[in-house]
Formats: sequence, C-alpha cells, structure tokens
Amino acid sequence: MRIGVFDSGVGGLTVLRTLTLELPDQDYVYLGDTARLPYGTKSPQTIRNYSVQIMDFLADLKVDAIVIACNTASSQVPETEWKGIPIFNVITPGAQAAVDSSRSQVIGVLATRATVASQSYPQAIHSLRPNAKVVSQAAPLLVPLAEEGWTDDPITDQILRRYLAPLMAEGIDTLVLGCTHYPLLRSAIDRLTDYRLHLIDAGKPIASLIKDLISADSKNELKNQPTEGETRSAKSQLGRITFLATDLSPHTEALAKRILAPAMISDVQAVTL
Amino acid sequence: MRIGVFDSGVGGLTVLRTLTLELPDQDYVYLGDTARLPYGTKSPQTIRNYSVQIMDFLADLKVDAIVIACNTASSQVPETEWKGIPIFNVITPGAQAAVDSSRSQVIGVLATRATVASQSYPQAIHSLRPNAKVVSQAAPLLVPLAEEGWTDDPITDQILRRYLAPLMAEGIDTLVLGCTHYPLLRSAIDRLTDYRLHLIDAGKPIASLIKDLISADSKNELKNQPTEGETRSAKSQLGRITFLATDLSPHTEALAKRILAPAMISDVQAVTL
Repeated sequence: MRIGVFDSGVGGLTVLRTLTLELPDQDYVYLGDTARLPYGTKSPQTIRNYSVQIMDFLADLKVDAIVIACNTASSQVPETEWKGIPIFNVITPGAQAAVDSSRSQVIGVLATRATVASQSYPQAIHSLRPNAKVVSQAAPLLVPLAEEGWTDDPITDQILRRYLAPLMAEGIDTLVLGCTHYPLLRSAIDRLTDYRLHLIDAGKPIASLIKDLISADSKNELKNQPTEGETRSAKSQLGRITFLATDLSPHTEALAKRILAPAMISDVQAVTL
Repeated sequence: MRIGVFDSGVGGLTVLRTLTLELPDQDYVYLGDTARLPYGTKSPQTIRNYSVQIMDFLADLKVDAIVIACNTASSQVPETEWKGIPIFNVITPGAQAAVDSSRSQVIGVLATRATVASQSYPQAIHSLRPNAKVVSQAAPLLVPLAEEGWTDDPITDQILRRYLAPLMAEGIDTLVLGCTHYPLLRSAIDRLTDYRLHLIDAGKPIASLIKDLISADSKNELKNQPTEGETRSAKSQLGRITFLATDLSPHTEALAKRILAPAMISDVQAVTL
C-alpha cells in the first residue's frame, strides 16, 4: 500500500514515525504544508480548503489511504472517505483510545490554543462517553520547544510542570497529546508525572486501523486488481518514504529527519499545490 | 498625519507603541497580516508580494507614511517610497542606532531563525561600519514566550540566559532586538545583563525620522495643500489608533491591547486584502 500522510508542518511526522515502526513494509508519502503553517490561526473555511487541496493532491498520487496527521485539519474533515480513498484523522482514534484507557474517566487534553478553542477532543470524547470529565490545557510553548530540539531539558521540564499542574490537580489518569508535535515530549511527560498517566497519541490507533484495512484489502485482492494504466509497478517499491513540503528550508529538512529517525527518508521534494 | 504601520502579526505593535508615546497627536492605522503569519518561513518572493499588497492597501487609505514594523518584510522592501509615500523599515534605523551606540563595535543581534539566516542586520551594520563585529543568535522561543505573556518569569529568564550567554562571551556592548516582539522582553534582558548593554530597537529611531518628516511637511505646508476630493476632514481626528487584522481572534485582540497599553485602540476591524 501507499499511504499519504499530511500536516501543516513537520509535527505529523511523529504519526508517520509510528506508522513506519508498526507497518515498515508500506510506502509513505508525507506532505507538510510548511508554506502555509500554522493552520491553527486560520479560519475553519480556509483550513477546510487547504485540506481538500492536499487530499486531492494525494489522491492524484494514487495513495490507498490518507492520514490527516494534524489536529486542526482533522477537525475540518468529517469525511471518512475522499474520492473512494479511506481517510483517518487523529481526533477520533485519539478520543477512542483515551476512553478505552481511562479508569477514572477524568481525561486531560494538552493541545495548542486553537485545538483547545475548537473543543474537538471534548466533543469526540463526550460522544463516546457522555459522563467523562475532560480538562483541557492550552500549551503554546510546546511546539517551539520541540522544534528547537529541547526535548530533554530542564527548561522544558519546568514549562511542562506548569502546564501539567492544573491537569494533575483535577485527578486525570489519562492525557491526550492533542498536537502531533507532543509525542516528541512523551518521555519528559512520563518522567515528570512518575509514569502515572496513560499518554495517548493517535499514532498506534491509526496504525491498527490501517492494519485492518490492509487485511481487508488482501482478502478482497481478486476484486481490487489494478486497472489498466494504473502504475502498479510504481507501488511495488515497498518501504519508501517520500517527504514533500510546500516550503523547504534546510532547517525543515534536518528537523524532519530528526523526528522520523530511525526511519529514513528516501526522497525529499518541494512541491506547489 | 496618518501613519500606516504593518507587520505579519502583533509584534509590530511594540513599534506602534513607541510611536504613540513619541508622537501622540498623530493618527495611526496598524495592519497585522495574522491570517498569513509567520512571514519568516515563506519565500522572499511571497514575502515581497504580501508586503506590496499591504503597502497598496495602506496607500488606498491615504496614509502619509508607512512603517514596516516587521524584520522579515523589511528585508524584502528596499524602496524608501511607495506611490509617493515615504517608507520606513526597521532594519536600517536599527543598524544605524547600533553602530552609533556601540563603543567596542562588537554588536549582538538577537532575532528569529529566519532573520538570522537572511543576514540583514550584519549586512546593514557592515555597510555603515565595515570593521564592526556582528554576532547573531537565533532565539525562536522568544516570540511564543512574549505572546504567552510570560515576560517577567523565571522560566523566561532561564531561556534568555541561554540565548544571551554566547553573545556576552563575545564581548558585545550593544544588542539589536532584531524582532519586533522582543521589546516586550527588554526589561528582563536589561536585568539579566546588569544593564550593561545598549539595547536597540527601531521604535525610537523611526519616531525621530517621522518627526523630521512632520517638520519638513509643516515647512512645505503651502506646497502640500490637500487637493480637491481629498478627505482632509477625516485626517483631522488626531490621535486615533485603528487596529486591522486579516484574521481576528479574541486572543489576538486581547494581545494587541496588552502590547499597546497605555495607548488605546479606537477601532478594531478584520479586513481582507
């Protein structure tokens, strides 16, 4: 399979990283819309337009599934299919994993200011478990800290303590990492909370949904023979990771490689949507 | 006079704040291109296009001067006039003030990653003083810290210490605050460096250039009578501050008011360019 993954920037690479660890023999095309980041400050209609543009772009590349590895974009794409291609967002699987993990049903959400304001996680969690208590904390410094590479740093520890304190005071037992950058801070959060929280990111739940898709696909193999003209041969180079960005600086490329390691990028390209 | 001031976001309000303190009886129109921020990650051509679009927009509002209160945009607008309107950028006056202040001619520049990469300040300083030594430090966490409002905070002190240490080790006596957000951290930087540095931001130098413009204008008053159809009456409401933004959230508006205080915004509007 060829799986398309997109985000406004490099944060979604944490999702891609988990996918490559869980499903190493698939092809991946990642698109970071770095020229137009951040999405969080833009209007819902603009975020929708950008997401549709990228989904069309990935559909033209004949991907077999699309992962929206961006919380902001996920909240503007309710569809589960695009031009016949299955779509996975980060919010639904994250909310499901959170309610499955939590015993107390007091669930924390750590996210950007925009995602907290959108109420996407409380809504998704309450639709699954109406009585759950959801406590949200906006944490705008975590993305720049992660991008600066200060993921194991006493300064970051202090900032995390400040953001986590009100959540811990509410008695959460589960914390949704509601921004695709935050898994880079997972071990720091684990350490600072004495490993007492279930930390939820969407990577593994999405990998498991894609595994189901692959096994369903292989059962239907006869039905899904490639049509004439479809370049099945291009798809047979398994395990390739293509990194596309709408604006490509050396810093972005270095950051992408650092986040994705140990997986290796086969091809890096700047693209225009 | 009506003075147009623009930036990609709210940072340029520190320049506007200085202008309103130095020249309180003028009218100001501020435009924050918040829908398309940050400019720093975009290509030079795109930054140029956006800047031209905004200068045309301000020219249509019949401003008498335009201040580019954004380091990234300043580096893409070499013009000193636009449609007959004088333009002031932040880099030239900042560089001039730095070489005027420095005795050792070892000058530090604290800026975003994009501004450091653009080499705008070293170039501007060297064109004035070829033998000056310029030491740059990218400080990507300072904008989010300032926007979070943690301007007087032990965490911010630690981060500043880390960014300032390599500059201090080089023996700088003058530090250019090369991002319009950074004046919000001026008192913290002063305190952490024992008030030993000349801290340079472009606000006062630009105010002084505009004072010169006003006095030249009043000398030429007979020559510059308003032409028929020009709404001179609209210009006579002195001291009004209009805040325009291409994307306007409650957070942006609150932040704008906090940065600009004690000056008060008369009018807030979302605009489309």
